Amino acid sequence: MIAHPGKSGEARDRREPAPGRRRPGRPRLQAPSVEYLERRSEILAKASEVFDARGYDAGTLEDVAAAMGMRKAGLYHYVRSKSHLLFLLFDRAWQLGFDRIADIPAIQDPGERLAALIRTHVTLVCEQKSLFTVFFGHRPRFDDAAETVFAERERRYVGVFARAVRDAGEAGLVPAVDPLQGAMAIIGMTSWVYKWYEPGGATPQQIGDDFVRLVLGRRPAGPAG
Amino acid sequence: MIAHPGKSGEARDRREPAPGRRRPGRPRLQAPSVEYLERRSEILAKASEVFDARGYDAGTLEDVAAAMGMRKAGLYHYVRSKSHLLFLLFDRAWQLGFDRIADIPAIQDPGERLAALIRTHVTLVCEQKSLFTVFFGHRPRFDDAAETVFAERERRYVGVFARAVRDAGEAGLVPAVDPLQGAMAIIGMTSWVYKWYEPGGATPQQIGDDFVRLVLGRRPAGPAG
Repeated sequence: MIAHPGKSGEARDRREPAPGRRRPGRPRLQAPSVEYLERRSEILAKASEVFDARGYDAGTLEDVAAAMGMRKAGLYHYVRSKSHLLFLLFDRAWQLGFDRIADIPAIQDPGERLAALIRTHVTLVCEQKSLFTVFFGHRPRFDDAAETVFAERERRYVGVFARAVRDAGEAGLVPAVDPLQGAMAIIGMTSWVYKWYEPGGATPQQIGDDFVRLVLGRRPAGPAG
Repeated sequence: MIAHPGKSGEARDRREPAPGRRRPGRPRLQAPSVEYLERRSEILAKASEVFDARGYDAGTLEDVAAAMGMRKAGLYHYVRSKSHLLFLLFDRAWQLGFDRIADIPAIQDPGERLAALIRTHVTLVCEQKSLFTVFFGHRPRFDDAAETVFAERERRYVGVFARAVRDAGEAGLVPAVDPLQGAMAIIGMTSWVYKWYEPGGATPQQIGDDFVRLVLGRRPAGPAG
Protein backbone atom coordinates (compact mmCIF):
# COMPACT_ATOMS: atom_id res chain seq x y z
CA MET A 1 0.00 0.00 0.00
CA ILE A 2 2.77 2.40 0.88
CA ALA A 3 5.59 1.26 -1.32
CA HIS A 4 4.20 0.99 -4.78
CA PRO A 5 6.81 -0.19 -7.21
CA GLY A 6 7.93 2.04 -10.02
CA LYS A 7 8.29 5.75 -10.43
CA SER A 8 6.28 7.09 -7.52
CA GLY A 9 7.93 4.70 -5.06
CA GLU A 10 11.39 5.69 -6.20
CA ALA A 11 10.49 9.34 -6.10
CA ARG A 12 9.19 8.98 -2.59
CA ASP A 13 12.38 7.44 -1.27
CA ARG A 14 14.46 10.16 -2.89
CA ARG A 15 12.36 12.97 -1.56
CA GLU A 16 11.95 11.88 2.03
CA PRO A 17 13.27 14.66 4.24
CA ALA A 18 16.81 14.24 5.43
CA PRO A 19 16.86 12.92 8.98
CA GLY A 20 17.98 15.18 11.75
CA ARG A 21 19.67 12.39 13.67
CA ARG A 22 21.29 9.04 13.03
CA ARG A 23 19.21 5.94 13.50
CA PRO A 24 21.56 2.97 13.63
CA GLY A 25 18.78 0.43 13.92
CA ARG A 26 16.73 1.71 11.04
CA PRO A 27 15.65 -0.98 8.61
CA ARG A 28 16.94 -0.77 5.06
CA LEU A 29 14.72 1.50 2.96
CA GLN A 30 15.63 0.10 -0.45
CA ALA A 31 13.57 -3.06 -0.04
CA PRO A 32 11.47 -2.83 3.11
CA SER A 33 9.87 -6.07 4.20
CA VAL A 34 6.16 -6.71 4.06
CA GLU A 35 6.10 -6.80 7.86
CA TYR A 36 7.86 -3.45 8.04
CA LEU A 37 5.41 -1.85 5.62
CA GLU A 38 2.41 -3.31 7.41
CA ARG A 39 3.66 -2.03 10.73
CA ARG A 40 4.28 1.41 9.27
CA SER A 41 0.81 1.35 7.79
CA GLU A 42 -0.61 0.65 11.26
CA ILE A 43 1.42 3.52 12.63
CA LEU A 44 0.06 5.87 9.98
CA ALA A 45 -3.50 4.85 10.73
CA LYS A 46 -2.94 5.43 14.44
CA ALA A 47 -1.12 8.70 13.83
CA SER A 48 -4.10 9.91 11.79
CA GLU A 49 -6.38 9.24 14.74
CA VAL A 50 -4.02 10.99 17.16
CA PHE A 51 -3.71 14.08 14.97
CA ASP A 52 -7.41 14.09 14.18
CA ALA A 53 -8.23 14.04 17.90
CA ARG A 54 -5.56 16.42 19.17
CA GLY A 55 -4.66 18.45 16.09
CA TYR A 56 -1.46 18.00 14.16
CA ASP A 57 0.37 20.74 16.01
CA ALA A 58 -0.63 19.55 19.46
CA GLY A 59 -0.12 15.85 18.78
CA THR A 60 3.37 14.47 19.35
CA LEU A 61 5.38 11.45 18.29
CA GLU A 62 5.15 10.38 21.94
CA ASP A 63 1.36 10.39 21.60
CA VAL A 64 1.59 8.24 18.48
CA ALA A 65 4.04 5.83 20.14
CA ALA A 66 1.80 5.59 23.21
CA ALA A 67 -1.26 4.93 21.05
CA MET A 68 0.70 2.14 19.35
CA GLY A 69 1.90 0.73 22.65
CA MET A 70 5.46 1.37 21.46
CA ARG A 71 8.38 3.29 22.84
CA LYS A 72 9.33 6.42 20.95
CA ALA A 73 12.69 4.86 20.13
CA GLY A 74 10.85 2.03 18.41
CA LEU A 75 8.76 4.48 16.42
CA TYR A 76 11.97 5.94 14.98
CA HIS A 77 12.49 2.69 13.10
CA TYR A 78 9.50 3.70 11.01
CA VAL A 79 9.34 7.48 10.98
CA ARG A 80 12.26 9.86 11.24
CA SER A 81 10.46 12.88 12.61
CA LYS A 82 7.04 14.42 12.95
CA SER A 83 7.38 16.16 9.61
CA HIS A 84 8.41 12.86 8.03
CA LEU A 85 5.29 11.32 9.55
CA LEU A 86 3.16 14.07 8.02
CA PHE A 87 4.84 13.42 4.70
CA LEU A 88 4.02 9.71 5.00
CA LEU A 89 0.39 10.53 5.82
CA PHE A 90 0.10 12.70 2.72
CA ASP A 91 1.77 10.01 0.68
CA ARG A 92 -0.65 7.43 2.06
CA ALA A 93 -3.67 9.63 1.30
CA TRP A 94 -2.58 10.00 -2.31
CA GLN A 95 -1.77 6.31 -2.65
CA LEU A 96 -5.20 5.36 -1.32
CA GLY A 97 -6.84 7.82 -3.66
CA PHE A 98 -5.10 6.46 -6.73
CA ASP A 99 -5.57 2.85 -5.62
CA ARG A 100 -9.32 3.32 -5.27
CA ILE A 101 -9.89 5.07 -8.59
CA ALA A 102 -7.37 2.98 -10.53
CA ASP A 103 -9.92 1.11 -12.65
CA ILE A 104 -12.39 3.97 -13.10
CA PRO A 105 -10.81 5.78 -16.08
CA ALA A 106 -11.37 2.58 -18.10
CA ILE A 107 -15.16 2.85 -17.68
CA GLN A 108 -16.42 3.81 -21.11
CA ASP A 109 -19.80 5.31 -20.22
CA PRO A 110 -19.01 8.85 -19.05
CA GLY A 111 -21.99 9.00 -16.70
CA GLU A 112 -21.04 5.73 -15.04
CA ARG A 113 -17.46 6.89 -14.86
CA LEU A 114 -18.37 10.17 -13.17
CA ALA A 115 -20.75 8.38 -10.81
CA ALA A 116 -18.01 5.90 -9.88
CA LEU A 117 -15.61 8.74 -9.12
CA ILE A 118 -18.15 10.46 -6.90
CA ARG A 119 -19.03 7.30 -4.99
CA THR A 120 -15.43 6.17 -4.65
CA HIS A 121 -14.12 9.49 -3.41
CA VAL A 122 -16.95 9.88 -0.89
CA THR A 123 -16.42 6.36 0.40
CA LEU A 124 -12.67 6.77 0.71
CA VAL A 125 -12.90 10.04 2.62
CA CYS A 126 -15.61 8.68 4.94
CA GLU A 127 -13.71 5.47 5.63
CA GLN A 128 -10.44 7.31 6.21
CA LYS A 129 -11.91 10.35 7.86
CA SER A 130 -9.07 10.81 10.33
CA LEU A 131 -6.43 10.58 7.62
CA PHE A 132 -8.26 13.02 5.38
CA THR A 133 -8.89 15.40 8.23
CA VAL A 134 -5.12 15.68 8.52
CA PHE A 135 -4.68 15.72 4.74
CA PHE A 136 -7.28 18.37 3.94
CA GLY A 137 -6.69 20.38 7.09
CA HIS A 138 -3.03 21.10 6.40
CA ARG A 139 -0.96 22.84 3.83
CA PRO A 140 2.49 21.84 5.00
CA ARG A 141 5.54 22.89 3.05
CA PHE A 142 7.50 19.79 2.20
CA ASP A 143 10.86 19.97 0.51
CA ASP A 144 10.92 20.92 -3.16
CA ALA A 145 11.05 17.36 -4.44
CA ALA A 146 8.07 16.30 -2.37
CA GLU A 147 6.13 19.43 -3.30
CA THR A 148 6.73 18.67 -6.96
CA VAL A 149 5.58 15.08 -6.64
CA PHE A 150 2.46 15.99 -4.66
CA ALA A 151 1.56 18.78 -7.07
CA GLU A 152 1.91 16.34 -9.94
CA ARG A 153 -0.32 13.82 -8.19
CA GLU A 154 -2.95 16.46 -7.53
CA ARG A 155 -2.87 17.52 -11.17
CA ARG A 156 -3.26 13.90 -12.24
CA TYR A 157 -6.07 13.15 -9.77
CA VAL A 158 -8.00 16.28 -10.70
CA GLY A 159 -7.41 15.41 -14.36
CA VAL A 160 -9.30 12.14 -13.98
CA PHE A 161 -12.30 14.06 -12.64
CA ALA A 162 -11.97 16.80 -15.26
CA ARG A 163 -12.01 14.32 -18.14
CA ALA A 164 -15.07 12.61 -16.66
CA VAL A 165 -16.87 15.97 -16.35
CA ARG A 166 -15.88 16.92 -19.90
CA ASP A 167 -16.98 13.59 -21.36
CA ALA A 168 -20.25 13.58 -19.40
CA GLY A 169 -20.88 17.13 -20.61
CA GLU A 170 -20.22 16.18 -24.23
CA ALA A 171 -22.59 13.25 -23.85
CA GLY A 172 -25.25 15.60 -22.49
CA LEU A 173 -25.31 13.83 -19.13
CA VAL A 174 -24.34 16.91 -17.15
CA PRO A 175 -24.52 20.57 -18.11
CA ALA A 176 -21.57 21.77 -20.15
CA VAL A 177 -19.20 23.48 -17.72
CA ASP A 178 -15.51 24.20 -17.68
CA PRO A 179 -14.05 20.72 -17.02
CA LEU A 180 -11.56 21.93 -14.43
CA GLN A 181 -14.13 23.95 -12.52
CA GLY A 182 -16.57 21.08 -12.75
CA ALA A 183 -13.89 18.76 -11.40
CA MET A 184 -13.17 21.09 -8.49
CA ALA A 185 -16.91 21.38 -7.81
CA ILE A 186 -17.21 17.61 -7.53
CA ILE A 187 -13.97 17.13 -5.62
CA GLY A 188 -15.11 19.84 -3.21
CA MET A 189 -18.55 18.32 -2.76
CA THR A 190 -17.14 14.85 -2.16
CA SER A 191 -14.10 15.84 -0.09
CA TRP A 192 -16.15 18.05 2.23
CA VAL A 193 -17.68 14.93 3.81
CA TYR A 194 -14.58 14.79 6.01
CA LYS A 195 -16.15 17.68 7.92
CA TRP A 196 -19.58 16.22 8.51
CA TYR A 197 -19.71 12.47 7.92
CA GLU A 198 -20.37 10.58 11.14
CA PRO A 199 -20.47 6.80 11.42
CA GLY A 200 -23.98 5.84 12.44
CA GLY A 201 -25.61 8.55 10.31
CA ALA A 202 -26.08 8.39 6.56
CA THR A 203 -23.74 5.75 5.12
CA PRO A 204 -21.08 6.58 2.53
CA GLN A 205 -23.27 4.65 0.08
CA GLN A 206 -26.30 6.82 0.84
CA ILE A 207 -24.27 10.00 0.62
CA GLY A 208 -22.72 8.87 -2.65
CA ASP A 209 -26.15 7.98 -4.03
CA ASP A 210 -27.50 11.45 -3.27
CA PHE A 211 -24.44 13.17 -4.71
CA VAL A 212 -24.66 11.12 -7.91
CA ARG A 213 -28.35 11.94 -8.11
CA LEU A 214 -27.65 15.63 -7.63
CA VAL A 215 -25.01 15.73 -10.37
CA LEU A 216 -26.37 13.15 -12.81
CA GLY A 217 -29.89 12.59 -11.57
CA ARG A 218 -31.99 13.82 -14.42
CA ARG A 219 -32.18 12.47 -17.92
CA PRO A 220 -30.96 15.16 -20.27
CA ALA A 221 -33.29 16.86 -22.71
CA GLY A 222 -30.61 16.48 -25.36
CA PRO A 223 -26.87 16.36 -25.98
CA ALA A 224 -26.56 20.12 -25.61
CA GLY A 225 -27.63 19.85 -21.95
CA MET B 1 -19.77 44.47 10.68
CA ILE B 2 -18.47 43.00 13.90
CA ALA B 3 -20.91 44.29 16.44
CA HIS B 4 -24.34 43.59 15.13
CA PRO B 5 -26.97 44.80 17.49
CA GLY B 6 -29.29 42.35 19.11
CA LYS B 7 -28.99 38.81 20.20
CA SER B 8 -25.87 37.67 18.43
CA GLY B 9 -23.92 40.75 19.47
CA GLU B 10 -24.91 40.31 23.09
CA ALA B 11 -24.16 36.64 22.97
CA ARG B 12 -20.74 37.38 21.58
CA ASP B 13 -19.82 39.72 24.36
CA ARG B 14 -21.00 37.24 26.95
CA ARG B 15 -19.14 34.35 25.43
CA GLU B 16 -15.80 35.96 24.81
CA PRO B 17 -13.18 33.95 26.67
CA ALA B 18 -12.25 35.31 30.06
CA PRO B 19 -9.02 37.25 29.81
CA GLY B 20 -5.96 35.73 31.40
CA ARG B 21 -4.55 39.12 32.37
CA ARG B 22 -5.76 42.57 33.26
CA ARG B 23 -5.75 45.17 30.54
CA PRO B 24 -6.13 48.55 32.20
CA GLY B 25 -6.22 50.48 28.93
CA ARG B 26 -8.79 48.34 27.26
CA PRO B 27 -11.69 50.25 25.73
CA ARG B 28 -15.16 49.65 27.12
CA LEU B 29 -16.76 46.62 25.48
CA GLN B 30 -20.38 47.51 26.18
CA ALA B 31 -20.58 50.16 23.48
CA PRO B 32 -17.44 50.15 21.39
CA SER B 33 -17.02 53.15 19.11
CA VAL B 34 -17.24 52.97 15.35
CA GLU B 35 -13.53 53.77 15.14
CA TYR B 36 -12.72 50.98 17.55
CA LEU B 37 -14.73 48.46 15.56
CA GLU B 38 -13.24 49.59 12.27
CA ARG B 39 -9.75 49.29 13.63
CA ARG B 40 -10.51 45.83 15.00
CA SER B 41 -11.94 44.87 11.63
CA GLU B 42 -8.66 45.93 9.99
CA ILE B 43 -6.76 43.87 12.52
CA LEU B 44 -8.88 40.82 11.76
CA ALA B 45 -8.30 41.22 8.03
CA LYS B 46 -4.57 41.53 8.57
CA ALA B 47 -4.52 38.64 11.03
CA SER B 48 -6.26 36.46 8.42
CA GLU B 49 -3.47 37.22 5.98
CA VAL B 50 -0.78 36.51 8.56
CA PHE B 51 -2.30 33.17 9.56
CA ASP B 52 -3.04 32.25 5.96
CA ALA B 53 0.60 32.88 5.03
CA ARG B 54 2.29 31.38 8.09
CA GLY B 55 -0.30 29.02 9.47
CA TYR B 56 -2.31 29.73 12.59
CA ASP B 57 0.03 27.84 14.87
CA ALA B 58 3.19 29.46 13.55
CA GLY B 59 1.76 32.98 13.31
CA THR B 60 1.99 35.11 16.43
CA LEU B 61 0.34 38.21 17.82
CA GLU B 62 3.70 39.92 17.28
CA ASP B 63 3.40 39.07 13.57
CA VAL B 64 -0.09 40.56 13.47
CA ALA B 65 1.03 43.70 15.32
CA ALA B 66 4.01 44.07 12.99
CA ALA B 67 1.80 43.66 9.93
CA MET B 68 -0.44 46.40 11.34
CA GLY B 69 2.49 48.65 12.13
CA MET B 70 1.42 48.52 15.78
CA ARG B 71 3.14 47.54 18.97
CA LYS B 72 1.89 44.37 20.58
CA ALA B 73 0.75 46.39 23.58
CA GLY B 74 -1.48 48.38 21.24
CA LEU B 75 -2.93 45.22 19.78
CA TYR B 76 -4.08 44.19 23.26
CA HIS B 77 -6.58 47.03 23.16
CA TYR B 78 -8.41 45.03 20.51
CA VAL B 79 -7.67 41.37 21.12
CA ARG B 80 -6.96 39.74 24.45
CA SER B 81 -5.01 36.75 23.27
CA LYS B 82 -4.32 34.66 20.22
CA SER B 83 -7.24 32.38 21.02
CA HIS B 84 -9.48 35.44 21.40
CA LEU B 85 -8.26 36.57 17.98
CA LEU B 86 -9.19 33.20 16.50
CA PHE B 87 -12.58 33.50 18.12
CA LEU B 88 -13.04 36.94 16.57
CA LEU B 89 -12.03 35.58 13.15
CA PHE B 90 -14.61 32.82 13.40
CA ASP B 91 -17.19 35.33 14.55
CA ARG B 92 -16.34 37.58 11.61
CA ALA B 93 -16.60 34.71 9.14
CA TRP B 94 -20.07 33.84 10.39
CA GLN B 95 -21.16 37.47 10.43
CA LEU B 96 -20.02 37.95 6.85
CA GLY B 97 -21.79 34.77 5.81
CA PHE B 98 -25.09 35.82 7.35
CA ASP B 99 -24.75 39.39 6.11
CA ARG B 100 -24.29 38.24 2.53
CA ILE B 101 -27.17 35.77 2.44
CA ALA B 102 -29.50 37.91 4.53
CA ASP B 103 -31.94 38.72 1.73
CA ILE B 104 -31.78 35.40 -0.07
CA PRO B 105 -34.33 33.40 1.94
CA ALA B 106 -36.96 35.91 0.78
CA ILE B 107 -36.46 34.96 -2.89
CA GLN B 108 -39.60 33.07 -3.81
CA ASP B 109 -38.39 31.11 -6.84
CA PRO B 110 -36.53 28.13 -5.36
CA GLY B 111 -34.19 27.86 -8.34
CA GLU B 112 -33.23 31.50 -8.13
CA ARG B 113 -32.86 31.19 -4.40
CA LEU B 114 -30.52 28.20 -4.66
CA ALA B 115 -28.54 29.91 -7.44
CA ALA B 116 -28.17 33.03 -5.31
CA LEU B 117 -26.88 30.98 -2.39
CA ILE B 118 -24.31 29.25 -4.61
CA ARG B 119 -23.09 32.49 -6.17
CA THR B 120 -23.02 34.39 -2.90
CA HIS B 121 -21.15 31.74 -0.95
CA VAL B 122 -18.57 31.29 -3.74
CA THR B 123 -18.03 35.03 -3.99
CA LEU B 124 -17.68 35.48 -0.25
CA VAL B 125 -15.14 32.69 0.14
CA CYS B 126 -13.12 33.90 -2.86
CA GLU B 127 -13.12 37.50 -1.68
CA GLN B 128 -12.21 36.52 1.87
CA LYS B 129 -9.95 33.63 0.98
CA SER B 130 -7.47 34.28 3.80
CA LEU B 131 -10.19 34.49 6.41
CA PHE B 132 -11.88 31.33 5.19
CA THR B 133 -8.58 29.49 4.98
CA VAL B 134 -8.29 30.07 8.71
CA PHE B 135 -11.97 29.36 9.27
CA PHE B 136 -12.21 26.13 7.29
CA GLY B 137 -8.73 24.94 8.18
CA HIS B 138 -9.27 24.87 11.92
CA ARG B 139 -11.45 23.10 14.40
CA PRO B 140 -10.55 25.02 17.55
CA ARG B 141 -12.26 24.25 20.80
CA PHE B 142 -13.75 27.45 22.12
CA ASP B 143 -15.41 27.63 25.48
CA ASP B 144 -18.80 26.01 25.85
CA ALA B 145 -20.79 29.19 25.30
CA ALA B 146 -18.93 30.00 22.09
CA GLU B 147 -19.20 26.41 20.87
CA THR B 148 -22.95 26.53 21.43
CA VAL B 149 -23.35 29.79 19.56
CA PHE B 150 -21.19 28.68 16.62
CA ALA B 151 -22.97 25.33 16.40
CA GLU B 152 -26.28 27.15 16.33
CA ARG B 153 -25.06 29.45 13.56
CA GLU B 154 -23.85 26.52 11.52
CA ARG B 155 -27.19 24.77 11.93
CA ARG B 156 -28.97 27.94 10.84
CA TYR B 157 -26.70 28.58 7.85
CA VAL B 158 -26.94 24.99 6.65
CA GLY B 159 -30.69 25.20 7.16
CA VAL B 160 -30.98 28.03 4.63
CA PHE B 161 -29.26 25.84 2.04
CA ALA B 162 -31.25 22.75 3.01
CA ARG B 163 -34.58 24.54 2.56
CA ALA B 164 -33.46 25.83 -0.83
CA VAL B 165 -32.44 22.30 -1.91
CA ARG B 166 -35.71 20.88 -0.63
CA ASP B 167 -37.83 23.54 -2.35
CA ALA B 168 -35.88 23.27 -5.61
CA GLY B 169 -36.32 19.49 -5.46
CA GLU B 170 -40.07 19.80 -4.88
CA ALA B 171 -40.27 22.21 -7.82
CA GLY B 172 -38.44 19.67 -9.99
CA LEU B 173 -35.52 22.04 -10.52
CA VAL B 174 -32.96 19.69 -9.01
CA PRO B 175 -33.14 15.96 -8.41
CA ALA B 176 -34.92 15.01 -5.22
CA VAL B 177 -32.22 14.36 -2.62
CA ASP B 178 -32.07 14.45 1.14
CA PRO B 179 -32.14 18.22 1.84
CA LEU B 180 -29.39 18.11 4.43
CA GLN B 181 -27.08 16.03 2.26
CA GLY B 182 -27.86 18.23 -0.70
CA ALA B 183 -27.06 21.27 1.40
CA MET B 184 -23.74 19.79 2.49
CA ALA B 185 -22.97 18.88 -1.13
CA ILE B 186 -23.48 22.47 -2.20
CA ILE B 187 -21.74 23.98 0.80
CA GLY B 188 -18.82 21.65 0.16
CA MET B 189 -18.66 22.49 -3.53
CA THR B 190 -18.79 26.22 -2.88
CA SER B 191 -16.59 26.33 0.23
CA TRP B 192 -13.85 24.27 -1.40
CA VAL B 193 -12.93 27.24 -3.59
CA TYR B 194 -10.84 28.47 -0.65
CA LYS B 195 -8.36 25.77 -1.66
CA TRP B 196 -8.05 26.58 -5.33
CA TYR B 197 -9.37 30.03 -6.21
CA GLU B 198 -6.61 32.33 -7.34
CA PRO B 199 -7.11 36.00 -8.24
CA GLY B 200 -6.29 36.41 -11.90
CA GLY B 201 -7.79 33.04 -12.87
CA ALA B 202 -11.49 32.34 -13.22
CA THR B 203 -13.47 35.05 -11.43
CA PRO B 204 -15.86 34.28 -8.58
CA GLN B 205 -18.62 35.17 -11.02
CA GLN B 206 -17.41 32.62 -13.58
CA ILE B 207 -16.99 29.96 -10.94
CA GLY B 208 -20.44 30.69 -9.55
CA ASP B 209 -21.94 30.55 -13.04
CA ASP B 210 -20.47 27.11 -13.67
CA PHE B 211 -21.56 25.81 -10.28
CA VAL B 212 -25.11 27.07 -10.80
CA ARG B 213 -25.09 25.48 -14.25
CA LEU B 214 -23.88 22.19 -12.82
CA VAL B 215 -26.57 22.10 -10.13
CA LEU B 216 -29.47 23.77 -11.92
CA GLY B 217 -28.37 23.81 -15.52
CA ARG B 218 -30.89 21.64 -17.21
CA ARG B 219 -34.58 22.14 -17.55
CA PRO B 220 -36.31 19.33 -15.73
CA ALA B 221 -38.31 16.71 -17.56
CA GLY B 222 -40.98 17.06 -14.91
CA PRO B 223 -41.64 17.76 -11.25
CA ALA B 224 -40.42 14.30 -10.26
CA GLY B 225 -36.95 15.16 -11.43
